[in-house]
Amino acid sequence: MLEIVTLGTGSAVPGLFRNHSSTALSHDGEITLFDCGEATQHQIQKVRLRHSKIRSIFISHVHGDHLFGLMGLLTTLSLNGRDIPLSLYGPEGLGEYVAFNLRFIRGDLFYPLHIHEFRGGEIFDLGPQAEVHVVELKHSIPTYGFLYREKEKPGKFDVEAASRLKIPPGPLYGRLQRGEPIEWEGRTIRPEEVLGPPREGIAVGYALDTEPCKGTHYLAKNSQVLIHDATYKDEDKRHARRGKHSTHGEAISLALKHGVKQLILTHFSQRYLEFFQNESRDGLEIIYAYDGMRLVL
Amino acid sequence: MLEIVTLGTGSAVPGLFRNHSSTALSHDGEITLFDCGEATQHQIQKVRLRHSKIRSIFISHVHGDHLFGLMGLLTTLSLNGRDIPLSLYGPEGLGEYVAFNLRFIRGDLFYPLHIHEFRGGEIFDLGPQAEVHVVELKHSIPTYGFLYREKEKPGKFDVEAASRLKIPPGPLYGRLQRGEPIEWEGRTIRPEEVLGPPREGIAVGYALDTEPCKGTHYLAKNSQVLIHDATYKDEDKRHARRGKHSTHGEAISLALKHGVKQLILTHFSQRYLEFFQNESRDGLEIIYAYDGMRLVL
Repeated sequence: MLEIVTLGTGSAVPGLFRNHSSTALSHDGEITLFDCGEATQHQIQKVRLRHSKIRSIFISHVHGDHLFGLMGLLTTLSLNGRDIPLSLYGPEGLGEYVAFNLRFIRGDLFYPLHIHEFRGGEIFDLGPQAEVHVVELKHSIPTYGFLYREKEKPGKFDVEAASRLKIPPGPLYGRLQRGEPIEWEGRTIRPEEVLGPPREGIAVGYALDTEPCKGTHYLAKNSQVLIHDATYKDEDKRHARRGKHSTHGEAISLALKHGVKQLILTHFSQRYLEFFQNESRDGLEIIYAYDGMRLVL
Repeated sequence: MLEIVTLGTGSAVPGLFRNHSSTALSHDGEITLFDCGEATQHQIQKVRLRHSKIRSIFISHVHGDHLFGLMGLLTTLSLNGRDIPLSLYGPEGLGEYVAFNLRFIRGDLFYPLHIHEFRGGEIFDLGPQAEVHVVELKHSIPTYGFLYREKEKPGKFDVEAASRLKIPPGPLYGRLQRGEPIEWEGRTIRPEEVLGPPREGIAVGYALDTEPCKGTHYLAKNSQVLIHDATYKDEDKRHARRGKHSTHGEAISLALKHGVKQLILTHFSQRYLEFFQNESRDGLEIIYAYDGMRLVL
């Protein structure tokens, strides 16, 4: 199961109802975190996700509202006894940042932390489930978007085909479903005899913080679900240009143009206290995120 | 008015009910902050204190649970348009820590930040209201306690004496109360003619994180109100020794020995989920702090 949990949906300064940026992508129970603003570890607790399930953290850029929760989360994982590895991905210099801060607090992490710095264009393999493509965006400092691509999944199990082959329901079904050939009544049965065609995985794009640019088009074109900067309302477009952010309307146009199925708007300026109303437009589901929102894909 | 607000009362890792260490001392509306664990700026919002009222921040030691909210708070003050100075006091190296982190996020503060590093023994003048004495404590890394001493206050206004001198109630009372001589019916009236003897200010001690040591005795001896490390219950004393913390009983004995009036216990290990019961013992008021607790002195 693939689930998006928006942990923090505000920009720049925290408010009582919107924390700094962070979004969790929980995939069959393993969590990938995009950005880690201050108090992200608190938000994770509040929504009852488990810190221990985090496998990878991606930092889009090094502004404080996307970064200042990182050291706290890394040290909490260690204090909680983590011993399995954690992968951290971020812009150049992030390794030095972590090293400096750990040295300063005289802290050690008691688990392996693998740091991967990127400059855009890289594809990182997260194991059997997914890979992440790093894409350059356009903000006031070097900033990157992410395309989280679920890997191809085995086809649906065809029970009728299996019963025609006289395979009894039970563990043999499971082995075939997992792609293993089995021996049955003196012959080898290959998985493709009982499975439909491989199914394409879902792709989730993440574009924070950014103006409309080549990178956002690439992400929109290649994802069914797009999490996008929507710092400002359209009437405040001048602020969006000055801060190098996007407006609600800019994100919506982009998603419509590329046939995105679900658009999650986030990173709202704290100047807006109103409730934004979700809507559907030409087959696009437009979702205004709030802290703690969960969306099963 | 002097008011203590315990913003975070847990140790090491944040829990749903106890955040990392921070305590605000609000003195006639101006706030001095002791320690600044992650999400301290959030706690300040929750208790409806105003960030803009912070004048000074003291960091006791550079463990993450006392420090990781600092950069977020400093940058939020700037984003909120602060232009008045802020004083930051902390152990050696804190200036470099702030400079490195600001450089890394490409951030500037748009208000004057005055950083004072200490090694113990210093007395810092906070202006007309108070001074803070820095005292060395005993923890796993260099750690310092603070004695916040309210300065001597003018004596009580003696209305009878003023009416004997035929001074009419009104603005003249105020000027005398503030220590100014006035001219009335052809003669000079000095404040001491209508004010009682100067009143000694209150002293508040802050001793986190520490084992019992010379410094904690000094703080207890010189304060009416003592905020003290109480990470462990007495039955877990072995953990206190290993982590170089104090137990509830150790803090209470210390306060009793030196005639402290109010003892505020805090920095509780997250292993304890129970509610600790306040009590009085031999004239000592023992107060178990919780996040958001306010105590007017």
